[in-house]
Amino acid sequence: MDKVRFGIIGVGNMGSKHFENFMNGKIKNGVVTAIADLVPEKLERMKQMAAEIDPSAKFECYASGDELIAAKPCDAVIIAVPHYFHPVFAIKAMKAGLNALVEKPAGVYTEQVREMLGESALHPELKLCIMFNQRTNPYFKKMKALIADGELGKVTRLNWIITNWFRSQSYYDAGGWRATWKGEGGGVLYNQAPHNIDLFQWIPDMMPSSVRAFCKFGKFHDIEVEDDVTAYFEYPNGATGVFITTTGDAPGTNRFEITGTKGRLIYDGGKLFFTKNEIPSDEFIRTGPGFKKPPFTTEEIVLDDENPQHVGILNNFADSILGLCALYSPASDGIRGVELANAMLLSAWEDRSVELPIDGKHFYERLQEHIRDSKIVKKENAGGVVDLAGTY
Amino acid sequence: MDKVRFGIIGVGNMGSKHFENFMNGKIKNGVVTAIADLVPEKLERMKQMAAEIDPSAKFECYASGDELIAAKPCDAVIIAVPHYFHPVFAIKAMKAGLNALVEKPAGVYTEQVREMLGESALHPELKLCIMFNQRTNPYFKKMKALIADGELGKVTRLNWIITNWFRSQSYYDAGGWRATWKGEGGGVLYNQAPHNIDLFQWIPDMMPSSVRAFCKFGKFHDIEVEDDVTAYFEYPNGATGVFITTTGDAPGTNRFEITGTKGRLIYDGGKLFFTKNEIPSDEFIRTGPGFKKPPFTTEEIVLDDENPQHVGILNNFADSILGLCALYSPASDGIRGVELANAMLLSAWEDRSVELPIDGKHFYERLQEHIRDSKIVKKENAGGVVDLAGTY
Repeated sequence: MDKVRFGIIGVGNMGSKHFENFMNGKIKNGVVTAIADLVPEKLERMKQMAAEIDPSAKFECYASGDELIAAKPCDAVIIAVPHYFHPVFAIKAMKAGLNALVEKPAGVYTEQVREMLGESALHPELKLCIMFNQRTNPYFKKMKALIADGELGKVTRLNWIITNWFRSQSYYDAGGWRATWKGEGGGVLYNQAPHNIDLFQWIPDMMPSSVRAFCKFGKFHDIEVEDDVTAYFEYPNGATGVFITTTGDAPGTNRFEITGTKGRLIYDGGKLFFTKNEIPSDEFIRTGPGFKKPPFTTEEIVLDDENPQHVGILNNFADSILGLCALYSPASDGIRGVELANAMLLSAWEDRSVELPIDGKHFYERLQEHIRDSKIVKKENAGGVVDLAGTY
Repeated sequence: MDKVRFGIIGVGNMGSKHFENFMNGKIKNGVVTAIADLVPEKLERMKQMAAEIDPSAKFECYASGDELIAAKPCDAVIIAVPHYFHPVFAIKAMKAGLNALVEKPAGVYTEQVREMLGESALHPELKLCIMFNQRTNPYFKKMKALIADGELGKVTRLNWIITNWFRSQSYYDAGGWRATWKGEGGGVLYNQAPHNIDLFQWIPDMMPSSVRAFCKFGKFHDIEVEDDVTAYFEYPNGATGVFITTTGDAPGTNRFEITGTKGRLIYDGGKLFFTKNEIPSDEFIRTGPGFKKPPFTTEEIVLDDENPQHVGILNNFADSILGLCALYSPASDGIRGVELANAMLLSAWEDRSVELPIDGKHFYERLQEHIRDSKIVKKENAGGVVDLAGTY
């Protein structure tokens, strides 16, 4: 294989951006040979884009992801359809012998993600990737590395205020599937914040043992799902965490603080500050005098590494298929974020603390209840979910 | 009355500082005429201090607060004894016709604070003040004023990470009453954070309708009370809040963020930042396009007003007794902080959300259970609380 041949299933918001990156030659070892969408106009738009950027580009167009997978004009597919269908198409692709990359989240509920990962286990020769493009942010990578290297000592506290996901009502009204139990399976936790939820566990490499979340449904918007979340986490090592997100605050805040016994990281508004204790706090508690604190220094960490985002993940995916490197963002990681989002919803629905791992079947049943009891009627598009697959 | 004559009950940590401020002539319309402490050495120390700073100073020494109040060599008393005794001595003082200032917190449980306020209601001619000295911080005053003036619109979210109260084990071991249910009635919520708890309600002028708190008891230290708290609040107007405090983090963080529809205030590390939305977020949700946010500006507010702290509160207390001004920090405000601290403990003890106002009698009974079940044996001083009154 010289270059990996890609098919893109769904050329809406995200899929069209991936297509554009390919047209601009940004994926060194990858080429698009096929695209699929249920909406013919979207395919036409991609043809026009290709004609403008790279008239020599040759790719087949398919009226659905199923047709594309059946025709197999590629080695790998990029799945950029509504969340529920990420595992569905990934499983079909792997069964057909194709490598697959799914957009985030890995799925809406853990059971379907587990099914996808089960299929993946049957195909060790195929790569299954998830688009966690924020993992390429050099500051997040640095935070992860510092913690892994023990520079923070034992992590005791996590706090992420990630409230800069403002959306107006018109955003929600523009897509029939948006912000519905049936169409997305949730709100800000499933559409806007999945990257942050992933990073919240990926950076410290810590999953909580229990979650108590307070989700407000349609608090700021006329929607049925959560648009405001405050969640409290407890970890096996005794650490605690708070995660706050919303689409209702403007302009909102993005501040992630991680405290450990040896120091603290604060990522705030794109800047990273690292505080180091000369003596770890737990040692100083045992040995230090009365009101004193251990001496410390604080420095800003300035990085000029580039942040390749989607292009970085796509290049890594292609290169890993060619055996040139390891997969940076494996879809198997994706179940952690889905489990956290599920746990937050379940905690709010049932007004209680939820232990992890959650009972996936129980969550699925509760989600079905919400879908069944949904009274939302979208103004512009009340069509079923299936009809909208591929429009994302 | 030319100058208000003050008696100081308890010349330990705080009382001795107040005494020093008087000796240095910092209380313009006040003079110390009496001090009381159960520990003779402390009285001796004050005599030495007076001899060094102001040899002309004349004041009587009493072996207890009761003796001082009975002798009435003053117009007002400053009560700087362990928390439980703030209302006790305030009531005795008012019954004797004395104005009174209590250290924070106003008491350990709402029932005793209510009793103190009931006594105060019988003496409208007497001032009853509480030492909320952080209320003189110009930044906190500015935040309060901006919110009162409607500059933030409707407040939607509060978040205070106030984790810079680090204490080592030796601090706790140094006082037999410290960090015990019997001696203090709680930990960080009752000793270190009462100022922050007060400001959390005073600045926005908002009390929550429900509290869900996660308190960890003796998490970082060998103590029986809480040294780590994460609390979630819901307000009658729909706002939510998070308050995080501990004595276990070093160096810790002090960052208070208040979000409203029209803007946001961030007080972080002593600096204040004010973000203003050109269009309020709730209006923009109704009228704005898809992914856009309302335009905004952010400015740092720099104030060079002085922050007189304890001296400011003492001057205001003296001046208000002379009828020169209104009382800035009335003790009647103090019940709010006590109720919040009580609600946080109760929520953690009973692992549930607590509605406000709390059932004060129920809280009192739960507190007595904790005192009764206490197994703590202090290394240096296992003496009863009463013996220690006046040593603070």
